[in-house]
Amino acid sequence: KMLGRVLCTVLLVGALPPPAAASQGHISVILLGATGDLAKKYLWQGLFQLYMDQVSSGHSFTFHGAALAALEPGQRLMFDVLKKLSCPPDEPPNRCAVLKDQFLKLSQYHQLKTAENYTALNREIETLLGQEGLKEAGRIFYFSVPPFAYTEIAQHISSSCRPPAGAWLRVVLEKPFGHDLESAQQLAAQLAGFFKEEEMYRVDHYLGKQAVAHILPFRDQNRQFLDPIWNRHHVERVEVVLKETVDAKGRTSFYEQYGVIRDVLQNHLTEALMFLIMELPANTSSAQDVVQHKLQALQSLWELERSSAVLGQYQAYDSQVQEELQEARGYVSTTPTFAGVLIHSDSPRWEGVPFLLTSGKALDERVGYARVLFKNRAYCTQSGSLRDAGHSQCKPKQIIFYFGHGALSTPAVLVSRNLFQPVMPKDSWKEAEARSELHIFGQPLSDFYMYSPVKERDAYSVLISNIYHGRRDFFITTESLLASWAFWTPLLDSTSRQPPRLYPGGVENQQLLDFEMVSGGLAFTVAEPAELLSPRGQMPSDFRAIQSKFRQSPLVSAWAEDLISQLASDMEQAAVSSVARSGHFHLALSGGSSPVGLFQRLARHHYSFPWQHTHVWLVDERCVPLTHSESNFQGLHRHLLQHVRLPYFNIHPMPVHLNQRLCVEEDAGAQLYAKDIVALVANASFDLVLLGVGTDGHTASLFPRSESGLEGAASVVLTESPVKPHQRMSLSLPLINRARQVFVLVLGKGKHDITTLLSRVGHEPSKWPISGVSPSSGQLVWYVDYEALLG
Amino acid sequence: KMLGRVLCTVLLVGALPPPAAASQGHISVILLGATGDLAKKYLWQGLFQLYMDQVSSGHSFTFHGAALAALEPGQRLMFDVLKKLSCPPDEPPNRCAVLKDQFLKLSQYHQLKTAENYTALNREIETLLGQEGLKEAGRIFYFSVPPFAYTEIAQHISSSCRPPAGAWLRVVLEKPFGHDLESAQQLAAQLAGFFKEEEMYRVDHYLGKQAVAHILPFRDQNRQFLDPIWNRHHVERVEVVLKETVDAKGRTSFYEQYGVIRDVLQNHLTEALMFLIMELPANTSSAQDVVQHKLQALQSLWELERSSAVLGQYQAYDSQVQEELQEARGYVSTTPTFAGVLIHSDSPRWEGVPFLLTSGKALDERVGYARVLFKNRAYCTQSGSLRDAGHSQCKPKQIIFYFGHGALSTPAVLVSRNLFQPVMPKDSWKEAEARSELHIFGQPLSDFYMYSPVKERDAYSVLISNIYHGRRDFFITTESLLASWAFWTPLLDSTSRQPPRLYPGGVENQQLLDFEMVSGGLAFTVAEPAELLSPRGQMPSDFRAIQSKFRQSPLVSAWAEDLISQLASDMEQAAVSSVARSGHFHLALSGGSSPVGLFQRLARHHYSFPWQHTHVWLVDERCVPLTHSESNFQGLHRHLLQHVRLPYFNIHPMPVHLNQRLCVEEDAGAQLYAKDIVALVANASFDLVLLGVGTDGHTASLFPRSESGLEGAASVVLTESPVKPHQRMSLSLPLINRARQVFVLVLGKGKHDITTLLSRVGHEPSKWPISGVSPSSGQLVWYVDYEALLG
Repeated sequence: KMLGRVLCTVLLVGALPPPAAASQGHISVILLGATGDLAKKYLWQGLFQLYMDQVSSGHSFTFHGAALAALEPGQRLMFDVLKKLSCPPDEPPNRCAVLKDQFLKLSQYHQLKTAENYTALNREIETLLGQEGLKEAGRIFYFSVPPFAYTEIAQHISSSCRPPAGAWLRVVLEKPFGHDLESAQQLAAQLAGFFKEEEMYRVDHYLGKQAVAHILPFRDQNRQFLDPIWNRHHVERVEVVLKETVDAKGRTSFYEQYGVIRDVLQNHLTEALMFLIMELPANTSSAQDVVQHKLQALQSLWELERSSAVLGQYQAYDSQVQEELQEARGYVSTTPTFAGVLIHSDSPRWEGVPFLLTSGKALDERVGYARVLFKNRAYCTQSGSLRDAGHSQCKPKQIIFYFGHGALSTPAVLVSRNLFQPVMPKDSWKEAEARSELHIFGQPLSDFYMYSPVKERDAYSVLISNIYHGRRDFFITTESLLASWAFWTPLLDSTSRQPPRLYPGGVENQQLLDFEMVSGGLAFTVAEPAELLSPRGQMPSDFRAIQSKFRQSPLVSAWAEDLISQLASDMEQAAVSSVARSGHFHLALSGGSSPVGLFQRLARHHYSFPWQHTHVWLVDERCVPLTHSESNFQGLHRHLLQHVRLPYFNIHPMPVHLNQRLCVEEDAGAQLYAKDIVALVANASFDLVLLGVGTDGHTASLFPRSESGLEGAASVVLTESPVKPHQRMSLSLPLINRARQVFVLVLGKGKHDITTLLSRVGHEPSKWPISGVSPSSGQLVWYVDYEALLG
Repeated sequence: KMLGRVLCTVLLVGALPPPAAASQGHISVILLGATGDLAKKYLWQGLFQLYMDQVSSGHSFTFHGAALAALEPGQRLMFDVLKKLSCPPDEPPNRCAVLKDQFLKLSQYHQLKTAENYTALNREIETLLGQEGLKEAGRIFYFSVPPFAYTEIAQHISSSCRPPAGAWLRVVLEKPFGHDLESAQQLAAQLAGFFKEEEMYRVDHYLGKQAVAHILPFRDQNRQFLDPIWNRHHVERVEVVLKETVDAKGRTSFYEQYGVIRDVLQNHLTEALMFLIMELPANTSSAQDVVQHKLQALQSLWELERSSAVLGQYQAYDSQVQEELQEARGYVSTTPTFAGVLIHSDSPRWEGVPFLLTSGKALDERVGYARVLFKNRAYCTQSGSLRDAGHSQCKPKQIIFYFGHGALSTPAVLVSRNLFQPVMPKDSWKEAEARSELHIFGQPLSDFYMYSPVKERDAYSVLISNIYHGRRDFFITTESLLASWAFWTPLLDSTSRQPPRLYPGGVENQQLLDFEMVSGGLAFTVAEPAELLSPRGQMPSDFRAIQSKFRQSPLVSAWAEDLISQLASDMEQAAVSSVARSGHFHLALSGGSSPVGLFQRLARHHYSFPWQHTHVWLVDERCVPLTHSESNFQGLHRHLLQHVRLPYFNIHPMPVHLNQRLCVEEDAGAQLYAKDIVALVANASFDLVLLGVGTDGHTASLFPRSESGLEGAASVVLTESPVKPHQRMSLSLPLINRARQVFVLVLGKGKHDITTLLSRVGHEPSKWPISGVSPSSGQLVWYVDYEALLG
């Protein structure tokens, strides 16, 4: 009946085109949290914009504000908001006034608290549609509520308020979506109990920002220019930055649990980065292709390490937390309010190109941008002023997606004039006026082609429009959310105990937060000034490697990441001195999961490792084809060999696969390997053997009570493992003990018991083969992480 | 007697310290061409400087000017020069006046024309020494004469004017030292008939320029700062530049034969570059180590290709040549007066770092410098003015060895303040005064630590001092000269027919000579403007690949370099479409010398080749161990596999070496390879087979009248070669003919006869195995260079 009235009104006004018959069906929008901050500030305005844009689309609409408050006060609060809805400047005032009137009439408040409330809402919608003879197109539920309320609301919607078959359901969720991988998985699992994947629209409002939303269209429309240069040969680096001047005051109860990485980097900046680095689908309007390519880009990123980030905290933060959260005076927060993170991708396109993500509060300016810097490939023969002309190939070249604020105070796309004049959609982006006085990133604005939106649109109104259009590529899928958390969680874990650098805030930060890429990670450029050192500077450092003895041999112990970095350095040093001594370095490596981090570290951080002169041998191998995923060699290849320049001839996989069969005694693979060793390794004495330890005390593929390999003349043996695949090939203990150096790497809580045991027992190789490792004239060093050592 | 007088004078003056007794012996300096331009301008002054510096060294000196002119006029001419010798500003005028007087008395003119003249000179020196009771330390012969006179003079010196045993001979030679590898070898061989290597001092006066001479000491004294950054991870590029404003007017008879590459790049700029990129010897004062490391650096450079250079010629040059050389009006010179060259090194330190050498006449300014630009590894969080401070890590970082002239008008060493404050020898280099108005390379001078010489010294006086000290590392050894010509000659050959870009000269050149790195080579940035196109623009291009038919199959023909570049592109295209179609690309490659250039091109220019999905197979192999230098696989590895990222599993060497023996029938290596092919390659149909042709018509290792491989079921066979090593393994013709594509590469004059023959004969594989290549359902393409095709 109400709808009838509205349609009537519209017809009576006459100045407006008659609405198309609602042939596309009816859409009900239910805004949960209709009187909250976000709703007040953005969502109602966005819904009104949707109505203005789509009034003639063939859909009819009703808007249902909902909250916990009772009908009367809720209604009053909500209509106070609605009355203040503004008309966009480009909308004819007459038309807008009429539409606003209609919008108010189509909007209704509901108390949604109990199951009955939801059932009633459902009935009301059904009744209305019945009365008006409209078919239902779909329902949008916008969750503008705290995450703890999600599950209950989801349950009510799913059980009592689903649209009938043939109509769609779209639920819109606001972050946070968990605070690490585990919590995000839990939340995702809960939601999956109520909604199908395609029903969920997780909002990252950055995807609605015009400059971010235009990254993919820009790449698509400028393929001809970008194809040859959008790669590691031309791109010097990519920066995605959000700088804020505000601090966390008034929000510390949220912020203290999240910090800048969860608040900004994990979501907003990562999303913008993915748009820049993902492979461009042939059809960028296919939401499915976009989502899939974005996911692949995310999965191509190198795992973050502690050294991948620099963290800061503005000095006043602690006292704000103490005040707002009523913490004691001595309370010390390690929550970062500033972060710079170095990211690398494994993809052939981006290999070696640094991606820098930066965000912080209490900085000197408010600005956000994603910036692609190109290498200078030119030499300008003529010196002087000509070189400075905007089109000179010797000036910096960059493409900037400017999110807003800052010097330009508008969203913008900027392309250096010496790159190319971009193709831009004329209806939505216009060339900006020259403002010659302005400089941006050290260059006059006149050096750029600059475009700004014809019509500036708020991110939420863009997103609400995309929800309406079902453009799921503007939202975060479960898969992509979890991939993002999987990427960020290791860094969050490894930095959780790290005291951030304190900074005074604003322009006073000076160069305190400048940072540099140093041996594969990041570090602040200037040393911490003494006057800023906090008392926490006196905290005992958890991270320093401790040196001691284990089983009468040197022991190096630290948290896993530091331990691996120490081990990698020690290996490089061993390699360098071995090459200096003998011209080569014979290295025997173990398989399994423990050394994966070590292999990655060697591949990524040790540029000076003398790979050209290194021979890599296997300590042991499973009897599977080399390309099999369980093959030790395959793991070694994936994590190390593929990434370094080892001559083909220096790679020595174990010959487990001969005559198209695996580890058959008559094929004499073990003897073959032994012969190769004798032929190449002087005295069959490896320069370095890297071993691990199993929970049963095995090492290499020498298991307790093994019939071969623990003693005797054979240097390479076939053995039996208690776990699958049972057949193995292994270096023997006598051969291992001929080595110049043996390093044993032991990682993780799971190894605590065997570590404890080994600290007590003597030389009993048949019970615990590892106890038989005792180089006859070489050196043995134990690398045991704190978890294995201390439990 | 004369010498006695001088010593007397010195003693009488008293104001000077008494000269040390000439206990180190006597040195005779003979300057041949004593009245020529170079002698007038630099050499006499340099000798006078030597005398001033070394008067108290314990050596006594005489100076013998020599020329073809008779005694009387020669003497007059020479003393006119000597009278004008100037005193350096830092020398006390009194002392200088006395020393100049002495120097004049110690100097004598000689006519040196006939053998008798040289014998007389020799006698004169001996007599003098006998009279004075001095032992002879050595003789310096400075050849300031045209190169055509070298041999005769050398012969005279060697036969009539050598110092006695125990005293050294040093002959100083001025360039040109040949104009290509062959002529340089000839000249070197001639000189070697008269002088020992250690007796020859070939001058490159750049090595005497203070800023060039200080490169190595700078690197040595600043090891602590440079060690971590002097490599590909930190250096973005290296530029070595000599820009001149003058043109070749008055020198065209010389210039027309040489051009800018021979005149400046082959010698001066190459030498400066070597100082920058050579490995630093532990002891930089060991001349031998320096010479050896410099040679190694030279040998590490990639071979230059035509696309490595851009060439220009100033517009007035042609008419100057016509006038000065009395050439006809229509005479067209292709001698370049401008060149930019891109150089790469193979060393692990510099891999991928571009070295740009540039020089030209009639440019906008006179300046020379060697400049190392560093990558920006920093992110500066604070925006604005702070970022511009000289020490900000976000400003450009560079080290410049400024040879002189230009804006600074003094030799200098400049180091960006955000890099480090260099260690400089205080006695010879002083910190320069701040001249805030000056900008250099787009930065204010205040951004640099800048040092200039305490005492500016002319290059020749530096070199003469180094001759005296026997510092051969300041001169060009025969080995290094020939290595340099070996490096430059291929470029000179390949560009000899190429018309250079014309440029108007001076500031009018504008951006006409700016150039860029494009797919591994260089290209001018702006297209040739129509109004500057010369008539030679209409010359038929020798270089365009022609397309035609050969033996009923498509033929691609061009000069070798273009042919290889076309073939490499076609291979990449085949690879890309194969991967798109099937997910992989099975490529079978031939060994031998012909494909080496192709392999290098693929490794260096084809960044987008899908190596990750490519399998490389061998077409044939010699029965030698894989690491043997004659192994096809070894060549393939060195030139291609080592440089690209092929997974280990995708590399398929032929199993010629099994059970520690080579190609034994019972080891069934051929069958093993055949099985591998069947297992991995669908239908045993390679995506692409690359073949060559022998002068006897063999292809793969299938030789005329071979008993196996030409027909039958075997897909891999053992064969016999008429040349060593006789035993071979080869794919069979039937297998090759199953391929989707077969490319045959034929290069060089030596293949002209077989090419001609093949164009006439039919299908006779037993006579000419290559004639049996005829893919049953695939495509065959011939790539034959002009030399093979046309003889």
